[in-house]
Amino acid sequence: MTATRPLAVIILAAGQGTRMKSAKHKVLHPVAGRPMLLHLLSSIAELKPERQVVVVGAGREQVEAAVYGTGAVIAVQEQQLGTGHAVAQAHDALAGFAGDILILYGDVPLVRPETMRAMLDRLNQGDDMRAVVLGFRPEDAAAYGRIITSGQGVISKMVEYKDADANERAVTLCNSGLMAVRSTDLFVLLDQIGNDNAAGEYYLPDIVMLPGAQSAVIEAEAWEVAGVNSRVEQAVVEAAWQDRRRSEAMREGATLIAPETVFFAYDTVLGRDVLVEPNVVFGPGVTVADNVVIHAFSHLEGATIDTGAEIGPYARLRPGAKIGPNAKVGNFVEVKKAELGEGAKVNHLSYIGDANIGARANVGAGTITCNYDGFFKYRTEIGAGAFIGSNSALVAPVTIGDGAIVAAGSVVTKAVDADALCLVRPAQEAKPGWAARFRARMQARKAAK
Amino acid sequence: MTATRPLAVIILAAGQGTRMKSAKHKVLHPVAGRPMLLHLLSSIAELKPERQVVVVGAGREQVEAAVYGTGAVIAVQEQQLGTGHAVAQAHDALAGFAGDILILYGDVPLVRPETMRAMLDRLNQGDDMRAVVLGFRPEDAAAYGRIITSGQGVISKMVEYKDADANERAVTLCNSGLMAVRSTDLFVLLDQIGNDNAAGEYYLPDIVMLPGAQSAVIEAEAWEVAGVNSRVEQAVVEAAWQDRRRSEAMREGATLIAPETVFFAYDTVLGRDVLVEPNVVFGPGVTVADNVVIHAFSHLEGATIDTGAEIGPYARLRPGAKIGPNAKVGNFVEVKKAELGEGAKVNHLSYIGDANIGARANVGAGTITCNYDGFFKYRTEIGAGAFIGSNSALVAPVTIGDGAIVAAGSVVTKAVDADALCLVRPAQEAKPGWAARFRARMQARKAAK
Amino acid sequence: MTATRPLAVIILAAGQGTRMKSAKHKVLHPVAGRPMLLHLLSSIAELKPERQVVVVGAGREQVEAAVYGTGAVIAVQEQQLGTGHAVAQAHDALAGFAGDILILYGDVPLVRPETMRAMLDRLNQGDDMRAVVLGFRPEDAAAYGRIITSGQGVISKMVEYKDADANERAVTLCNSGLMAVRSTDLFVLLDQIGNDNAAGEYYLPDIVMLPGAQSAVIEAEAWEVAGVNSRVEQAVVEAAWQDRRRSEAMREGATLIAPETVFFAYDTVLGRDVLVEPNVVFGPGVTVADNVVIHAFSHLEGATIDTGAEIGPYARLRPGAKIGPNAKVGNFVEVKKAELGEGAKVNHLSYIGDANIGARANVGAGTITCNYDGFFKYRTEIGAGAFIGSNSALVAPVTIGDGAIVAAGSVVTKAVDADALCLVRPAQEAKPGWAARFRARMQARKAAK
Repeated sequence: MTATRPLAVIILAAGQGTRMKSAKHKVLHPVAGRPMLLHLLSSIAELKPERQVVVVGAGREQVEAAVYGTGAVIAVQEQQLGTGHAVAQAHDALAGFAGDILILYGDVPLVRPETMRAMLDRLNQGDDMRAVVLGFRPEDAAAYGRIITSGQGVISKMVEYKDADANERAVTLCNSGLMAVRSTDLFVLLDQIGNDNAAGEYYLPDIVMLPGAQSAVIEAEAWEVAGVNSRVEQAVVEAAWQDRRRSEAMREGATLIAPETVFFAYDTVLGRDVLVEPNVVFGPGVTVADNVVIHAFSHLEGATIDTGAEIGPYARLRPGAKIGPNAKVGNFVEVKKAELGEGAKVNHLSYIGDANIGARANVGAGTITCNYDGFFKYRTEIGAGAFIGSNSALVAPVTIGDGAIVAAGSVVTKAVDADALCLVRPAQEAKPGWAARFRARMQARKAAK
Repeated sequence: MTATRPLAVIILAAGQGTRMKSAKHKVLHPVAGRPMLLHLLSSIAELKPERQVVVVGAGREQVEAAVYGTGAVIAVQEQQLGTGHAVAQAHDALAGFAGDILILYGDVPLVRPETMRAMLDRLNQGDDMRAVVLGFRPEDAAAYGRIITSGQGVISKMVEYKDADANERAVTLCNSGLMAVRSTDLFVLLDQIGNDNAAGEYYLPDIVMLPGAQSAVIEAEAWEVAGVNSRVEQAVVEAAWQDRRRSEAMREGATLIAPETVFFAYDTVLGRDVLVEPNVVFGPGVTVADNVVIHAFSHLEGATIDTGAEIGPYARLRPGAKIGPNAKVGNFVEVKKAELGEGAKVNHLSYIGDANIGARANVGAGTITCNYDGFFKYRTEIGAGAFIGSNSALVAPVTIGDGAIVAAGSVVTKAVDADALCLVRPAQEAKPGWAARFRARMQARKAAK
Repeated sequence: MTATRPLAVIILAAGQGTRMKSAKHKVLHPVAGRPMLLHLLSSIAELKPERQVVVVGAGREQVEAAVYGTGAVIAVQEQQLGTGHAVAQAHDALAGFAGDILILYGDVPLVRPETMRAMLDRLNQGDDMRAVVLGFRPEDAAAYGRIITSGQGVISKMVEYKDADANERAVTLCNSGLMAVRSTDLFVLLDQIGNDNAAGEYYLPDIVMLPGAQSAVIEAEAWEVAGVNSRVEQAVVEAAWQDRRRSEAMREGATLIAPETVFFAYDTVLGRDVLVEPNVVFGPGVTVADNVVIHAFSHLEGATIDTGAEIGPYARLRPGAKIGPNAKVGNFVEVKKAELGEGAKVNHLSYIGDANIGARANVGAGTITCNYDGFFKYRTEIGAGAFIGSNSALVAPVTIGDGAIVAAGSVVTKAVDADALCLVRPAQEAKPGWAARFRARMQARKAAK
């Protein structure tokens, strides 16, 4: 997938995003559990770019923090003077770079690396190509700028909708705004475009129509270049992503009983013959092996699930949950930073945090690992084949030995030896007739009210 | 929004509703968490009507109970003799009223106050207007009555589908049945219409075609006049309402990851930069401040959530839950008539009912407030910065002081002083080898079976 | 519904199903909670067939195990030589049978008994009919084989799409592959068809075009003959089934607030005026009586719910749950093999397994029936009107008498008499100032890190 020539990427992210009505920068709003900008940077990474420049207006600090560690640098567009002007702000950050430049948009997150690569390949098919524009054919072309071609995808005209005549408006090929240009051309061309238009802005597409070399268009699917200017559009892009991911999951051998109710994250990995019931939410970082069943209403994040395990319904796996082969996590159970050995069971109403559960251990309903004292977290170790009675509290740090039994309702604060019984329980007292007398008293009180 | 002239409203609710197959009166079936009739009365209230009459057939008691306190009165249509006859039953209830009369339908719940107002305004544009009919253009005009106009929305003919010729059937403007008429005209006109038709019924629309003054039509969106004659149609109306509400929420600055899985009630209030994950259900009475995160699978009703709080996944907030700024309610937690102070946390598997939780208090997993003795409810008070160990039961009425610590597994029945440790726990006993012997015995018994 | 003449059914299930990417045989993948093949066998059962033959290729053992007890027998097609060849493999299993033969497909699960019956009726309208083919009109006829008719549904030609001319391709009536033929004809005709085609296969439809008697087509709805060759198609068939079932539920008098979020099983039974909130999943074996409310996020399987009961939100009813009239099962409650008497309540965070809960008993939050010792299961009996305090563990086998009260946090191991109070609780200790000292120590430790 690596680009064949040195590659730099400019991502425009200087729009105000006012329609989002958000204190968060638009390009940091998530799709599939990941900020839109990071979707782009992840796709770009497959092309191994030499430089990545994100052009921002307001909200520089937020964006800078988000791209930390990705190698991307920030350029600032102080004034909003159009896309051409925005791209020009990347000039200094690209000083000394020689190669191809890809211009992307921070709010157009789903462009695939294959498409970016195709743009670059087209640019380099001959030496005489100035720019490659990414076009698309939306269901409703509406007010998009049109691309008029003259055979073989060579562009004869790019025209804003408002300037287009009836024939041009009838053209269904629209301009997504994404573009590939050579470093030797880009800034030279940008110097030549003007701002003689109603908005007084410098438009990037104008470089295509400057006299001289020709440009070409290649086409993407409409979903790939869908942009996000509002939360409604964010939801539309999310839905497009989810639909594609669901189909992919089914094609690869997972059964989704009701695909429209399963939500994946950008990095979810599913094995074969995985069965996913309705209403399952995958957060980031989940890997599911073959033959796993995930029952309805489960919520998984940062979890690894091994072959043949059974999860849910109503299971919540949080980051660091590692569920062993054929292990079971049942209803109303939360697992965090905890490992369940092969065939271990935590079937009901439990909180398992910072713990190791040995193979074939059985953790009874209502068991809580008390992992926090208000200041520090401690671990609970449960041995293989141990049996933890219901409603027990295991006060970490604590160790339950292999094959040990903890009686129901115990609060365990000291280590339990292997094969021992641990009992923390007062004697059962009976007060005969007390309940009848209590009832009589209370009924009288109620009647008196 | 107040109507400019005195206003009376007649709501027809005399249909049998047999297709609902329900013991509940049709107009009391809910949309967005509120009976359809109350949707209408709430919209009408914005116009400040002087009188409101609900015309019912069967089920008078149910409807009467439902409108109690709204100012609406009941008129009864003993026999089902058509819409014209039904409206005539409101005559006595409107005795002495002079002004405009709006005729609505109890099973057409989504008409907006703006639309009602527009009907009244049109009626009063001149003095010569007899009636204003609300028309709409359905996707499939089907067997609706058609409205034929002669410029400027003046009605030249209203025709039932079965009586319409091909030209008339080609007209897409249909009659919703809603109408505005003056009090001076309405009952006079009703006296003039006949029942010379196949069903032997008096049809309200016939007053439009009586000789004399002209009538006009104004148009509503189809969803606004969608009627409910079956539970399938009820679901369709609910879906239309939800879709609009979801879009509104997003436009106003909330992120809905999967809008189609979020269900609002008629009165839900959402702040800005609220993030709502998939599968969240809002019952009536919920107010959510800015920057709140509501995780998947949460169910909220009658709850107030302050800025920066984090709810769910799998959180159930019931009426009287007040969640303070930056407080957290985690998974499998139920909160009812309880207040959480700023930054307080109830993260796992707890029932918090009839309680105050102080600021920054931390309530451990599996904590239960025992608020009920079978007869009365009692309150639990937890001080600021207190730490409640996991699996504790707080037997109300009981007070835990500021900064106190309750050890895991405690059943607390007496007040705990500020900064004290409360411990309710027997000694831990060990029976070495017991588990191994038990296992051997049980395996033998299993083998013997 | 019984067929009028003796009936045998051949179900073809020899396809490789490679696109499913599954170790499970394709016809055993579920729709509406039941393997596709069993859907068919259940529909067929209404026609009371004398014989049923399932023709399989690979995976014979899986299919054999699945049809165990249904009366169906297995025939094996060793080589995949086409549908005609597959049907021929049923020859021996049908030895001695005289009557009608229906040929179905294991991956076409939704054909209704009414449709099967209509095929047989058409076959027997006269004596001169050779075969009845089931046709359908898909939204997109695509590459389906076309059926050309010459009035009254008599087939003049059946043609594969690739062999069809433009006129034939314009025909919208397509061949589903399902067929009814007489036993006296079927195997004779199969002997006459050849495999002179590109794939070298024997095609069942070819028997229609053999010289001699005529055949007819009757039409089914497209959803009824939708086939499953991939998990995506499985999801499509599931969705079609669910949509129909939801509409049926509403027509019969249940309110589904958001029908698209309610998932039924093949055998779900719902009473009248049942209210189902969003996001409810019915597994197999659920019967719900009148006036029941099922709140959001509930998961029911093998459960019986009596009149007026209230379930959820977040209730999980597992097989053997029997919920009495007006009883309540609240949030985060799991019920398994347990009976709740009239008006009994288990409202919060409980596990009730292998138990009887008496009428009007109240089971407090966090109660666990400890029904399992790692080897055997035991029952808990709770008497009428008993009150179980929160966070109690009832260690089965154990009996709580009528009207008894168990104090909060008790671990009950011995029987509690009627009207008695049971108390299992150590004294509450206080260590004044301990929490403040602990906090100081921990803060120091944190600071030191």
